[in-house]
Amino acid sequence: MAGSELTNIKSPRVKAARRLTKRAFRDRDRSFLAEGPQAVREALALDDVVVELFTTAEAELRHAEIVFAARAAGIPVLRTSGEVMAELAQTVTPQGLLAVCRFVHVPLERAVTADARLVAVLAHVRDPGNAGTVLRSADAAGADSVIFTDASVDPYNGKCVRASAGSLFHLPVATGAPVAQAVAKLKESGLRVLAADGAGKQTLDDVDLSGPTAWIFGNEAWGLPEELLRLADDVVRVPIYGRAESLNLATAAAVCLYASARFQRAGSPSAPGPRLP
Amino acid sequence: MAGSELTNIKSPRVKAARRLTKRAFRDRDRSFLAEGPQAVREALALDDVVVELFTTAEAELRHAEIVFAARAAGIPVLRTSGEVMAELAQTVTPQGLLAVCRFVHVPLERAVTADARLVAVLAHVRDPGNAGTVLRSADAAGADSVIFTDASVDPYNGKCVRASAGSLFHLPVATGAPVAQAVAKLKESGLRVLAADGAGKQTLDDVDLSGPTAWIFGNEAWGLPEELLRLADDVVRVPIYGRAESLNLATAAAVCLYASARFQRAGSPSAPGPRLP
Repeated sequence: MAGSELTNIKSPRVKAARRLTKRAFRDRDRSFLAEGPQAVREALALDDVVVELFTTAEAELRHAEIVFAARAAGIPVLRTSGEVMAELAQTVTPQGLLAVCRFVHVPLERAVTADARLVAVLAHVRDPGNAGTVLRSADAAGADSVIFTDASVDPYNGKCVRASAGSLFHLPVATGAPVAQAVAKLKESGLRVLAADGAGKQTLDDVDLSGPTAWIFGNEAWGLPEELLRLADDVVRVPIYGRAESLNLATAAAVCLYASARFQRAGSPSAPGPRLP
Repeated sequence: MAGSELTNIKSPRVKAARRLTKRAFRDRDRSFLAEGPQAVREALALDDVVVELFTTAEAELRHAEIVFAARAAGIPVLRTSGEVMAELAQTVTPQGLLAVCRFVHVPLERAVTADARLVAVLAHVRDPGNAGTVLRSADAAGADSVIFTDASVDPYNGKCVRASAGSLFHLPVATGAPVAQAVAKLKESGLRVLAADGAGKQTLDDVDLSGPTAWIFGNEAWGLPEELLRLADDVVRVPIYGRAESLNLATAAAVCLYASARFQRAGSPSAPGPRLP
């Protein structure tokens, strides 16, 4: 393997990347870190997102096609020692690939278009792992976009990026809008706005989900605030059939988003409907 | 507030409880730790489960009804300093209540009965947070029991207990059986055994889930092994409508378990069916 290796954790490029673990620096540089082969591969699939790629010699052998794609796109590839990678990575066992990426979010107007059928809104989600998991589930369920409101965690938080498993690069993500503004935009675009909350009088089994729908998901501990419940067209809860008090936020979101996906696709003539008992 | 306070982290009772954070000691003592007001409340609702309760003076005021219930049941309540609680607790911000509990799992034969309608099997789940979240979702979806096979994480792992949010105390949990033995028992009891795996030819939308069903969930990274897929009656995948490669294990499990719950309840005359598009 040719080329020199960054071995000094104090080198300016390592330090510049390392500080992107802090939100203030991410916002200033409008850049964030994407770690691991899956995230890096998805980031490289987009034009003009990856600014530079850090890799270890070992990862360069194991994921040769990723490193090749980066070089082919003219992206600087910086080989680092294992020690430097450990300093940059936020995981216990780094996989040896880490990309500095430009922000990928879009304005609210581009995330919510008139033909949107399914949108997920993270209203007060504070746990980055939960937020990333909801983003991944929204992508899997075929959502058109995901909105992180200003009271939610930063979508570029390392844990959120990792939990999204590449989905941050798959669908339009808007961030930073106040929830009232997001709800207004969704309603204006013809979506029915459903707040997912244990306080809902209707359950997921009671509502017709065939039309364009936006789901609002709240806080892990206390759900959604009263004023937000009033903004929504309806408040819907996932039915609890057993003795659990509630569901984990990310699992509740997945159940809601998949219920919408199933309904919408059953209503479309091109997709097979659910077979009924 | 009367009574003395344990202030020495080297006191024998503190040390005896502390070592239950390790599996070998849990297995030897057949005991585990349940942390926080919710878990302790659920544990106290069962007869003969809580062996002793550690509490801080502050928590004793905040959760007076829990401490009262413990004393009323003749359970020793040990007041500790904040420092000792921090030593015992496995969370960053301990809530000041921690119970030493007797094992609550049941033999496989009691977890899988002839009238079981919905059972979740954790076949190779290694992440304790995921395992606890599946347990919580299974409880919420009204499952009859949950089986942790011998290749899965210990259900008494602290992270698993916390992620289950009390559900470990709600429904029969079996642990330690080889997966082949669990599958044989489930089939013998009249349940259809479905392996949830991205390799499935059928999707969740294609299968009739109205009958008694056991779901097998695999490993976070590599799914289920070939020999286990062969043991199952069918292999079913959650459909991916967007661009995500897969779903998080715990969210996929919630979607499967809720699909079963909805089908089974729609088939029962006492429950409202899903309204169709």
